[in-house]
Amino acid sequence: MPRVMLITAYDGTNYNGSAYQPEATTVEGILMRALKGLTGEDVELIGASRTDAGVHALSNLFVFDTGSTVPPDKFSYALNSMLPEDIRIMKSMEVDSSFHPRHCNTVKTYQYRIWNADVMLPVKRLYAWHCSFDLDIQRMQAAAHYLEGTHDFTSFCNTQTQTPDHVRTVCSVGVFREGQEVVIEVKGKGFLYNMVRIIAGTLIDVGCERIQSSDIPDIIASLDRARAGNTAPAKGLTLVGYTF
Amino acid sequence: MPRVMLITAYDGTNYNGSAYQPEATTVEGILMRALKGLTGEDVELIGASRTDAGVHALSNLFVFDTGSTVPPDKFSYALNSMLPEDIRIMKSMEVDSSFHPRHCNTVKTYQYRIWNADVMLPVKRLYAWHCSFDLDIQRMQAAAHYLEGTHDFTSFCNTQTQTPDHVRTVCSVGVFREGQEVVIEVKGKGFLYNMVRIIAGTLIDVGCERIQSSDIPDIIASLDRARAGNTAPAKGLTLVGYTF
Repeated sequence: MPRVMLITAYDGTNYNGSAYQPEATTVEGILMRALKGLTGEDVELIGASRTDAGVHALSNLFVFDTGSTVPPDKFSYALNSMLPEDIRIMKSMEVDSSFHPRHCNTVKTYQYRIWNADVMLPVKRLYAWHCSFDLDIQRMQAAAHYLEGTHDFTSFCNTQTQTPDHVRTVCSVGVFREGQEVVIEVKGKGFLYNMVRIIAGTLIDVGCERIQSSDIPDIIASLDRARAGNTAPAKGLTLVGYTF
Repeated sequence: MPRVMLITAYDGTNYNGSAYQPEATTVEGILMRALKGLTGEDVELIGASRTDAGVHALSNLFVFDTGSTVPPDKFSYALNSMLPEDIRIMKSMEVDSSFHPRHCNTVKTYQYRIWNADVMLPVKRLYAWHCSFDLDIQRMQAAAHYLEGTHDFTSFCNTQTQTPDHVRTVCSVGVFREGQEVVIEVKGKGFLYNMVRIIAGTLIDVGCERIQSSDIPDIIASLDRARAGNTAPAKGLTLVGYTF
């Protein structure tokens, strides 16, 4: 059976995350229902990244095997006519039957957006977090640099995680201004539960001088979640894409 | 009584336009209710620009006279604690009691955003119109140039208008790409009913080669609404601001 990949974008505002839950409205649940309507099959969807409730994606990947006669590149068009407007298949294509979106050597890019002004702009309210304190970008950049590389990220992981191995490799953490927004861009091969949002919350604390950038190595080494900053709200986070 | 100006931003998605209507949810209606709660007064709000249902604003102006003891610059903070998140007072200040936001010599800037790619990106769906045809920006720019200046804009006005004088001065019409978006930026001292949306719809027709840019002078001169393009959907339009 051919394996088909769906490059999928969504506005996470109205979803309880990407991963299927039988009792909740999820991106995977909506995709599976549309695929059932189109092909008649109960497909098993494999998602590349689990995103939390309220997190957005410009490009998340889902693969499934299908016996359908729909040409792989036509799934995007056919599914978009059945999906709600806040989920879109940007592209669909056949991939090798051995392709697994979590086992491949891809780098994921996340962006965390902060609206850094006195008053939140209404049209940004669902896609950025509001921080009215003046953020010191240079301090945030210095702190970000310490997070790059391979570390045990226990201090930057939700304590409810069931993953035993907390060592991850962060390729880069960039901090830059874009108009009134401060953007934190994190690239890596894999992340722990809430890791990018805790990195964002910690860098915001550095930007407000609640944490010194030179404290970051100690915070990492402590393996203590309480030492890092708060988990920044989901709505500011967007999975931007993948580099193969 | 002091006259106070509210520089107001809103996401128009959930409103039946900015102008007060007793039976509908409008931006002015919500502002008046919040002002009543804050000051106890039934204020008369004067808005600078009436925006249609679904149109957004980064900066629309409202003034009112008040006998309240709230300092003019504190209205923003006080009102924001009472307003829904899709309406924000970006700034409040006292203005001269003779100041009228529609009678002053201001230039308004509107932007119309078009998502110009095969598939609409979900996070842009409320703030841009989707056009999957490849738009020819140079043709649009040539057409835009003909719209600049003082003309009778009857061809670019909703036929339901009750305004007798259709002569308006358009200071500039710019067309540019910003990532996957095509932005039409229109500056002028005043606009007719639906005028910016009809300009946008006409320029999109030019971009798709359904209308030739060299036809624009004839379309203006015809004073015939049927000769111009369709009224582009409200959601793509944003009132960006004022230049005094």
